Amino acid sequence: MHITALAGGVGGARFLRGLRRHLDQRDDGPHELTIVGNTGDDISLFGLRVCPDLDTLLYTLGGGVHEGQGWGRADESFAVQDELQAYGATPQWFRLGDRDFGTHVARSQWLAQGQTLSQVTARLAARWGLPDQGVRLLPMTDVPVETHVVIERDGQEQAIHFQEWWVRHQAAIPARRFVVAGLDRAAAAPGVLDALRSADVVLLPPSNPVVSIGVILGVPGVRDALRGTTAPVVGVSPIIGGAPVRGHADACLAVLDLEPSAAAVAGLYADFLDGWLVDDADADDPLPRGSRATSAHMPILMRDIDHAAKIAGGALDLALGLAR
Amino acid sequence: MHITALAGGVGGARFLRGLRRHLDQRDDGPHELTIVGNTGDDISLFGLRVCPDLDTLLYTLGGGVHEGQGWGRADESFAVQDELQAYGATPQWFRLGDRDFGTHVARSQWLAQGQTLSQVTARLAARWGLPDQGVRLLPMTDVPVETHVVIERDGQEQAIHFQEWWVRHQAAIPARRFVVAGLDRAAAAPGVLDALRSADVVLLPPSNPVVSIGVILGVPGVRDALRGTTAPVVGVSPIIGGAPVRGHADACLAVLDLEPSAAAVAGLYADFLDGWLVDDADADDPLPRGSRATSAHMPILMRDIDHAAKIAGGALDLALGLAR
Repeated sequence: MHITALAGGVGGARFLRGLRRHLDQRDDGPHELTIVGNTGDDISLFGLRVCPDLDTLLYTLGGGVHEGQGWGRADESFAVQDELQAYGATPQWFRLGDRDFGTHVARSQWLAQGQTLSQVTARLAARWGLPDQGVRLLPMTDVPVETHVVIERDGQEQAIHFQEWWVRHQAAIPARRFVVAGLDRAAAAPGVLDALRSADVVLLPPSNPVVSIGVILGVPGVRDALRGTTAPVVGVSPIIGGAPVRGHADACLAVLDLEPSAAAVAGLYADFLDGWLVDDADADDPLPRGSRATSAHMPILMRDIDHAAKIAGGALDLALGLAR
Repeated sequence: MHITALAGGVGGARFLRGLRRHLDQRDDGPHELTIVGNTGDDISLFGLRVCPDLDTLLYTLGGGVHEGQGWGRADESFAVQDELQAYGATPQWFRLGDRDFGTHVARSQWLAQGQTLSQVTARLAARWGLPDQGVRLLPMTDVPVETHVVIERDGQEQAIHFQEWWVRHQAAIPARRFVVAGLDRAAAAPGVLDALRSADVVLLPPSNPVVSIGVILGVPGVRDALRGTTAPVVGVSPIIGGAPVRGHADACLAVLDLEPSAAAVAGLYADFLDGWLVDDADADDPLPRGSRATSAHMPILMRDIDHAAKIAGGALDLALGLAR
C-alpha cells in the first residue's frame, strides 16, 4: 500500500509517526509512505536556511525530537545562539539549538552547492533512517516560498514573516491576511503530484489547515491532483470541541472569517475530501452542508505514540472503507 | 605611541597579548595598537567563512581562547560538528567547536549582507573588547585570498588548500611551493597601509615568516610601506636554536630552500628590517650577511603572558632605541 500525506509540523509529525507505528503493526505490509511537507514556514536565519516543518518531521520520525516541545532536538545546547547574541547578530527571537544548527548548516551548504531542496532533504532524511522505514519526505516545492502575515502597524499595512508572527508574537497580533510569496510560481517538487495521483490512500494529518495544509494546497497542481486522484482522501480534524489541538489554528481560521470548528476545516477541503475523522466531541457537527465526505469519530487527541497509532489506524480504516 | 604589527595566528596573538600587557605596565600611555592580520589561511567550511588567524587574535586578545591549544575557544562543545559528521557533511578533518561556529555564522551572515571583512572584523572585535584596549584589528585585505600548497600526487602537481596541508596532513607532505590565490590583485584593507606609514613603531611578532608574515608582505603596497615608513621596524624571531617555536615553520622555510634559522628569517625581511630580536641561543648568528638591522637577544620562548610581555617590551625597547 502506498500512502501519501500532506503535513505541517508538530501535529503532522506526531500523527505520521503514529501512522508509521500502525503500519508496522499491520500484517499486510510492507507499506510505503510519502510525506509532502510544508515549506511555507521556511526562513533564513543568520544566513542559514531553516525549514521548521521538514525538520520537525525528520526529527520526529527519526527519533531525535524534543518530545516535550514537539519540535527541535532532544538534549540541546545553545552555545552557537549564545555567541550570536553576544555578537549582536539578529534576530534573537528564534532560538536555535546547537544540534539543530548542524542541520541548518548542512542544508545551507548543500543548497549553496546547487542541490535542490528535494535532494538536500533526501540527504538529511537518510541520516534519520526514513528510507529504512519506507518513508519518503518531499518538500512541497524546491522553490523558496515564504508565508508572510499582513498586519496593521501605525495605521499602515505591513507584511512580516510568518515565523515572526507565530513565534515572536505568538499569533497575538491580528492578521489581516496571509500572503505566500512565490507560491503561485512554485512548481511542485519532483514526485509530489505523482505521489498524490498514484497513492492508494491520501491522508491529511491534523496539521494547521491554513498555514500548513492550506499552503501545500496552494502549490500549483496539488489541489487538482487531490481532486483527480482515485485514492480516497481522508483528513483528521485539527480542531477538537471548538479549539485547536495545539498552535494557533484558531487565529489562522479567523483570518479567513471562519470559526474554529471541525466542520469549518472540512469546508476548506470540501472539493476533494472523501473522509473526515473528528473527535467524539464533534460527532454531531463534523461536516459542513454540501460536503460529500463520510465522517467518523473517535478520541483524536494524540496523547502518546500508541494513541497516535490508533488514530492513524482509524483514519486509514476510514479510507480503506471508502476505497473506490 | 602608535604601534602597528603584522600577525599570523597563535604566535602572533600571544606576542601581541603580551605587548598589550607591557603597554599597560608602562607609564607613558595611552598607546594604540593596530594589528594587520593574515587572511591567507581563510577557508570556507560548510559554507561558512572561517578566518583562523583573525579568530585566534580575537579570542586571545579578548580572553576567550583555549589556552592549552592556543587557538579556538575555551570550554568548547562540538554538537554542530558532530551533527555535520552524522549527516556526512565534509570536510571532517577541520573540527570546529560550537562557540567557534557562532563566530563563523555571524561573520558569514554579515559578509553575505554585503559588509566587508574589515567591517565584519570590527563588529566581532567590539564584542571581544578590543577597542576598549586601544587595539584595532584589520584584515590584511578585504578581498578573499587563499594560500594553496602545491604538492605532488601520483606524479602530478596538485594544489590543496593551506589548511588541508597544515591541519589535515600536519605539513608532512613535501610542498613544492605556496600560491596565494588572488593575492596579486588584493588591495590592502582600508587603514592598513596608513597604519604602517604613520606608526611610531612597527613590530613583526614571531609569526610564521612564510605563510603568515610572508603572505601579508605580498599584499600590494605593504612591502613598500614597510620600506618607506619612518618608524623603526623590529621583528622577533620565530626560530629558536634552529627549530620553530611552534607550528611547521621549518617545513615552510624548506619550500624556499632556507634553513630554519633566525638569520634566514631575518634575510626574508632584509629590505625593511631595522631591528631583530633573537633568542640567547642564536646570539652569535642573528643576522644574514648584508643586513642593516640591529640585533638584540634575550630568552624569547613565550612561556606565559608575563614572559610574553617581557619579550614584547624587549622588542619595543629595541625599536625605541632605533627611532629615527
